Amino acid sequence: MTERIREFLRNRREDGPCVVVDLEVVRDNYAKFARALPDTRVFYAVKANPDPAVLKLLADLGSCFDTASVVEIELALAAGATPERISFGNTIKKERDIARALELGVRLFAVDCEVEVEKIARAKALTGAEDVRVFCRILCDGAGAEWPLSRKFGCVPEMATDVLEHACRLGLEAYGVSFHVGSQQRNTEAWDGALASAAEIFRECRERGIHLSMVNLGGGFPTKYLKTVPMVEAYGQSIFQALSRHFGNRLPETIIEPGRGMVGNAGLIEAEVVLISKKSRDEDEVRWVYLDIGKFGGLAETMDESIRYPIRTEHDGDRKIPCVLAGPTCDSADVLYEREPYFLPVSLEIGDKVLIEGTGAYTTTYSANHFNGFPPLKSYVI
Amino acid sequence: MTERIREFLRNRREDGPCVVVDLEVVRDNYAKFARALPDTRVFYAVKANPDPAVLKLLADLGSCFDTASVVEIELALAAGATPERISFGNTIKKERDIARALELGVRLFAVDCEVEVEKIARAKALTGAEDVRVFCRILCDGAGAEWPLSRKFGCVPEMATDVLEHACRLGLEAYGVSFHVGSQQRNTEAWDGALASAAEIFRECRERGIHLSMVNLGGGFPTKYLKTVPMVEAYGQSIFQALSRHFGNRLPETIIEPGRGMVGNAGLIEAEVVLISKKSRDEDEVRWVYLDIGKFGGLAETMDESIRYPIRTEHDGDRKIPCVLAGPTCDSADVLYEREPYFLPVSLEIGDKVLIEGTGAYTTTYSANHFNGFPPLKSYVI
Repeated sequence: MTERIREFLRNRREDGPCVVVDLEVVRDNYAKFARALPDTRVFYAVKANPDPAVLKLLADLGSCFDTASVVEIELALAAGATPERISFGNTIKKERDIARALELGVRLFAVDCEVEVEKIARAKALTGAEDVRVFCRILCDGAGAEWPLSRKFGCVPEMATDVLEHACRLGLEAYGVSFHVGSQQRNTEAWDGALASAAEIFRECRERGIHLSMVNLGGGFPTKYLKTVPMVEAYGQSIFQALSRHFGNRLPETIIEPGRGMVGNAGLIEAEVVLISKKSRDEDEVRWVYLDIGKFGGLAETMDESIRYPIRTEHDGDRKIPCVLAGPTCDSADVLYEREPYFLPVSLEIGDKVLIEGTGAYTTTYSANHFNGFPPLKSYVI
Repeated sequence: MTERIREFLRNRREDGPCVVVDLEVVRDNYAKFARALPDTRVFYAVKANPDPAVLKLLADLGSCFDTASVVEIELALAAGATPERISFGNTIKKERDIARALELGVRLFAVDCEVEVEKIARAKALTGAEDVRVFCRILCDGAGAEWPLSRKFGCVPEMATDVLEHACRLGLEAYGVSFHVGSQQRNTEAWDGALASAAEIFRECRERGIHLSMVNLGGGFPTKYLKTVPMVEAYGQSIFQALSRHFGNRLPETIIEPGRGMVGNAGLIEAEVVLISKKSRDEDEVRWVYLDIGKFGGLAETMDESIRYPIRTEHDGDRKIPCVLAGPTCDSADVLYEREPYFLPVSLEIGDKVLIEGTGAYTTTYSANHFNGFPPLKSYVI
């Protein structure tokens, strides 16, 4: 909770939950990444928070942008990023969207299989684009991540060399390798295994006459929720050591794609307690606290109770008791914390405001489109 | 797939996934409910699909409306429903929203605890509204439901009598009892246990001089996905028998709140195959099929793989092989069916259209607000 956010909320008059993002915190986060990994280019993961003001600030600071769709590419361009600072980082792209990205000047694409390479080659031929680079995403176990990734993106490392060779054969530049260690990754060593695989792919490609130059270290940098997380500096150091270990003195170019780590702690949601009740007269019965925001209003990352947001109230000095925390919709899946109840002050009352911290990332865009008639989460970037 | 939807899709030229809802099917579903439960008033659950054309048709047919918010109340009014045909069925309401509903003429409210009753009594006093009715929702185990409800809504039956007595004491009309047997309920007997509890609450209230008149049987009526489901008539018969069993010849007024059962099978999503790939060279490796719609584009009910939609392709005569089915976003949680792979034709190709059936309910409003830059699901009601 920054002073600027406090001031903003003091003056806010509208009804309903909102998220407030403080650009000064984003600026500070960017500087920390730049300092911790000085030789690494930062590609902000636009999906984490695509607000134009956030993108504009980062474009002004010199950030590059990792995008998931043509709309995100257009947002980055509108914020002032030049096309060479944009990567189309989604491994799942329609051929016509690739062509559109090429027309917009984007030249860097993620792939994880040969048919995706072929789409890019065809779109390149169609648009006459030159110097089109691809990097191949490899699978990587997400151990240590609070939001571990499935096998959805990437191929096994053994297949990556073939995919990259296929790209060369079709007139694309085989640029490098990418991986993602899982979102909200709290183990600073998590990058080591994937970097070992990446170095092996570099070697295999070299044997086939292909010279890769880039390793995309992905995202995964955590933001602070309830548990303490390592500082960005610790990640930087650990990654640098792993790079040296596996690449020796032939260090590749590197890219990182922070999203949550860039904007998570810059945002705060203000919400209201709508109802506090019990399901029975039983003294031991747990208390249910219902907010005017829930899983469908922006807090989708509480799915499986994976992310536990810090929640502040005006009664935080008082005794706390375990509560089930739920959202306002008529959907029974709209429960935030039940398996592991959340401790809230016994003096909390209906109508009280609560502040949910660390909500600058993956809240506005995860929010549903008027489910139950509730509008998408309001967002203020200050 | 109706002939009208087929015709509509033949002429559609826009890019991107869409859902098409055939009003003739909704009309037919309404008639079936009315026939199967002739003495029961139908309150359509607006949240299932709040499209104005759907609401207008149902209002014209004489349906009542179960709403979750002031916005949904306004939608029902705009569609032509008079306020006495609208219930505010959400047990979690802000006091100012209750007052707003009273101002709009709504007089029927769900509650599940005493503080919610107190909010309604205060809002009644504030607005000077008369004849305000409440019904108390009770907990009910969701056995047999594919989308079972949590304990989020309702109190234990033993508490309901006190809640209703509290309502009387505060000048509200204690109108009845409600419950919900779980969404996509495939057991026609599921209503029996809850009706036994309801009858017991009626008796207890009578002993305290309170005469309840209504039982709200909730929703839960299934739509056909992959598995066969019982016909509406079977539910009607089973419910009528359970009512007679527990209420004898003092049958209460009844209400049902179908949502999925009213619009689910009226809708069809057309989507496109964006990518088909494998994660390794291994012959036995499962094939991944990525569509341009996923969990965040409208298919949120595939959460935990609970609802398995029937999917049609142009190659359905061909041999089928197990596939992991996933959406187009850069979110690893955006996987539809993985634990239990989905069988799709071996001849399916990138660029092919697929038709996802039974998608008229809980798709447009579950869809996220431009996550990854993808727009919310387009909807056409014909």
